Amino acid sequence: MPGGHSQTLRPFLWRAQRLYPDTEVVSRTHEGRTRHTYAEYADRTARLANALDEYGIERGDRVATFCWNHTRHFETYFGVPNTGAQLHTINPLLPDEHIRYIVDDAADEIVFVDPSLAGKLASAAEGAEEFADVDFVVMGSSEIDEIDATPYEAFIADQPTEYDWPELDSDQPAGLCYTSGTTGKPKGVEYTQSMLWSHTMASQTPQGIPMEDSDVVMPVVPMFHVNAWGMPFTATAAGAKHVYPGPSPDPADLAALIEEEGVTISAGVPTVWLGLQEYITAGNDVDLSSLDTVIVGGAAAPRSLIEWYDDRGVEVLHAWGMTELSPIGTVSHLTADLRDADYDTQVDKRSKQGLVVPGLEFRVIDEDGEEIPWDGEAFGELRIRGPWVTKEYFARPDASEESFVDGWLKTGDVVTVDEDGYLQLVDRTKDVIKSGGEWISSVELENAIMAYDGVSEATVVGVPHERWQERPVAFVVAADGVDREALVDEIETGLREEYPKWWVPDAVEFIDEVPKTATGKFSKKDLREQYADQSLVEGSVPESDAPEQE
Amino acid sequence: MPGGHSQTLRPFLWRAQRLYPDTEVVSRTHEGRTRHTYAEYADRTARLANALDEYGIERGDRVATFCWNHTRHFETYFGVPNTGAQLHTINPLLPDEHIRYIVDDAADEIVFVDPSLAGKLASAAEGAEEFADVDFVVMGSSEIDEIDATPYEAFIADQPTEYDWPELDSDQPAGLCYTSGTTGKPKGVEYTQSMLWSHTMASQTPQGIPMEDSDVVMPVVPMFHVNAWGMPFTATAAGAKHVYPGPSPDPADLAALIEEEGVTISAGVPTVWLGLQEYITAGNDVDLSSLDTVIVGGAAAPRSLIEWYDDRGVEVLHAWGMTELSPIGTVSHLTADLRDADYDTQVDKRSKQGLVVPGLEFRVIDEDGEEIPWDGEAFGELRIRGPWVTKEYFARPDASEESFVDGWLKTGDVVTVDEDGYLQLVDRTKDVIKSGGEWISSVELENAIMAYDGVSEATVVGVPHERWQERPVAFVVAADGVDREALVDEIETGLREEYPKWWVPDAVEFIDEVPKTATGKFSKKDLREQYADQSLVEGSVPESDAPEQE
Repeated sequence: MPGGHSQTLRPFLWRAQRLYPDTEVVSRTHEGRTRHTYAEYADRTARLANALDEYGIERGDRVATFCWNHTRHFETYFGVPNTGAQLHTINPLLPDEHIRYIVDDAADEIVFVDPSLAGKLASAAEGAEEFADVDFVVMGSSEIDEIDATPYEAFIADQPTEYDWPELDSDQPAGLCYTSGTTGKPKGVEYTQSMLWSHTMASQTPQGIPMEDSDVVMPVVPMFHVNAWGMPFTATAAGAKHVYPGPSPDPADLAALIEEEGVTISAGVPTVWLGLQEYITAGNDVDLSSLDTVIVGGAAAPRSLIEWYDDRGVEVLHAWGMTELSPIGTVSHLTADLRDADYDTQVDKRSKQGLVVPGLEFRVIDEDGEEIPWDGEAFGELRIRGPWVTKEYFARPDASEESFVDGWLKTGDVVTVDEDGYLQLVDRTKDVIKSGGEWISSVELENAIMAYDGVSEATVVGVPHERWQERPVAFVVAADGVDREALVDEIETGLREEYPKWWVPDAVEFIDEVPKTATGKFSKKDLREQYADQSLVEGSVPESDAPEQE
Repeated sequence: MPGGHSQTLRPFLWRAQRLYPDTEVVSRTHEGRTRHTYAEYADRTARLANALDEYGIERGDRVATFCWNHTRHFETYFGVPNTGAQLHTINPLLPDEHIRYIVDDAADEIVFVDPSLAGKLASAAEGAEEFADVDFVVMGSSEIDEIDATPYEAFIADQPTEYDWPELDSDQPAGLCYTSGTTGKPKGVEYTQSMLWSHTMASQTPQGIPMEDSDVVMPVVPMFHVNAWGMPFTATAAGAKHVYPGPSPDPADLAALIEEEGVTISAGVPTVWLGLQEYITAGNDVDLSSLDTVIVGGAAAPRSLIEWYDDRGVEVLHAWGMTELSPIGTVSHLTADLRDADYDTQVDKRSKQGLVVPGLEFRVIDEDGEEIPWDGEAFGELRIRGPWVTKEYFARPDASEESFVDGWLKTGDVVTVDEDGYLQLVDRTKDVIKSGGEWISSVELENAIMAYDGVSEATVVGVPHERWQERPVAFVVAADGVDREALVDEIETGLREEYPKWWVPDAVEFIDEVPKTATGKFSKKDLREQYADQSLVEGSVPESDAPEQE
């Protein structure tokens, strides 16, 4: 049997430990800032692994965390998978019923829990049979009131600092993360050793988010969220310094860490960086001079955000990914050609989701099953495959059958691709409006409508239509005291000028607020059902207004 | 079965073709300089794949090349393995008997051969039963006299420019390269799709030899030599421009390509860069301003070479690898700490073989089977493992058993590792002198002896010794008219001051020339045998001079 050795996380830890024993792993915690060297980190990680062995964790067992970003959590990142067990990072923001479901689904043996999250976990676990066989370790030095848990420091206290890390297969499951689907039960995505290895290497390419040993890396994106976009692994492979922002960091906390630890690369959702921007524009003097790059993902990076940070010498690098992709898919670096383009063109490109990372392949399929042209206009569903893209959901053949076709992951994202190869998300497949053989982006219409004065919030959904399959209907939350009739006129006239006739919603309805999901996203499902129930569609659209479509 | 998709070369070609259709692949050829875009390259590669199908090449079949570095050769790099066949790059500098051996061993179906190498191939193939079933394709547009071969352009002429590249397994053999061992039969190393994929990704890390789409990459290292250190794959993954220097490029050819194509990264053995240096210092005005980095491997990079290129704004990056490693193992980047060090210290570090690339693990084992300390002094045999390190030799269980132990490749290299983790090669295991439980570096003694005036050449070998197992004996080629007795005194006195007593050779013998192998390396084997036959050892070493060793 030819071929190289297994692809596992072990060499990354080994390299950091041997080449960079004095480089630091820093964490903001409840008890102040902690500092460990990689040498100390490796010792503690070995102690954790020995403690797991002593507890009885075996290869393939699942060990869960219910934690913010800090060094002890990072210790589980290598300490659990390097033994052959599987690290299941639980999102503590999930509703209790989902937490019970996924702990049961994953058959977690132990949950490592933060003191500040113990109350939340206790409420989910209390009296739940799903938790009957689960033990708890609390991330600290002492016991707590909320839950019966061994303190982490006691758990690892008497263990040796050496561990003979085993040879593992490339396909040994190493991680597990559930998607926080807006509908239905959460779906688990297993990360094998090889997937995490591949993702780390791909992240390290110039086309990804490369790190060097001179970097100081601060993942603000939670470590329960697709391994903090893999940054704890990548930073270790590079021998970079780690900075973990701890529980619920606010902009002042992040500013202090950036200034005092010399952070060069950080990552988080746009609201994190908007928060820091607001903090600084409110008059707080923050030295951003060490900061080279801010990775923004999870939602679109607004132009204004990119420009504001550019003015301060900080590159906002827009990236797109999914739980199913470990997570990185695209990064919005400028191509060589665009480096000479004018600034506006550059920001346009950088606002898109970006260029596919080497090692992946994608195609974008329209409603007829054809690949779309790369013209920045046509759109279709993004399908993707590659070594760090999962091929199935954990123990969910039903969901897997829906989401994977001919080896491609159907991302559920509707995108355009421009002439230079930049992907841009325009909608989700479940929200895109399929009308008369064409697709209409609900997101684009929403953004257009929300730009009108007098509109507080707006959402656009496709409602069933006999002739056109679906037609768009806009739901608008009007500002107080607005002339609603005039506003509807204004919106309809404006949209007619800006978009093809068939894009213009068949109706604009006013509502008091847009229904939201547990995670704050617009819940279009509710509106769609509600509107369909009212059977308003046929009646509300004068036949003469019906879209002209070929 | 969890896990991501296969790791294959296909996505690299796809990405370059789709994102960078206009980026160029340039080649110096006998017929002048050729230029293709990636779009054209992809079309031609698809035509080659279709032609191979039509010829009857099937998955797992082997297709060989006997070529210099040029675009047609590069077409085989993706065109052969992406179909599921295996690309066997033959070193045309091998002796005829080795060529016959490896063509037979590999069971090559077709050999693609350069016109300028056809005579050499014909002489190896003539009347040889190993070539009975082998067909030839000549890299050009017309037939040639030397060998009965289909012209490449005719071979691919009528083929479609689309090819439905198949799904391949990660462990599908994709490449094959034989080591040009100084002794014994060449040993084949198979590269699976996954090994080439992993090597490409590892090369692309900042700790490797990363490339961007703005780079212009010129591999001078032959494409028959471990895939030109993987650069054709890496440059494609990055969407960089390729420049191939064609047959037997001399310094003027390289200078012209650098200047006219704007080469940013190049790679070759030290003599290539010494040649360019000499060409320039001889008064030829060459604009090196585009050139950022020159990768040097295959032999140690002399300090003077590094310094000369530094003065001209070109970074000499020293790398070490092996055929068995696909080939990259270490690259001599400066660590963050050393970036503030004085220039001399930096050049010292950069002259070493360097820091291990993320994803690999190594250990250095002394004669007692213990890991050496990382102090830059102790040395032992380097053992290495990782996803792009082979686990066996092709169809050679005998050689495999010798070279692989507990999953580690025994590299046959004797190295030190310093406090910062830099590896330095000090000898080959077969040449290092094992004396009284200690190892003595023959290379270090040779360098020390060659530094004396009056020494033209010198080599040091270990000869059998009853008490100490082996003792060093120096063989010196003296310059004309030198007082040999005085020279021996001078050398022995000098070495005694510089080295531990037991390092000093037991004898200094004069010879007319150092015997050399076919590839110009010192043939120590011959000397060792010759000296042992003379049974001089016991007699020639006065007992009082015997080394004191613990």
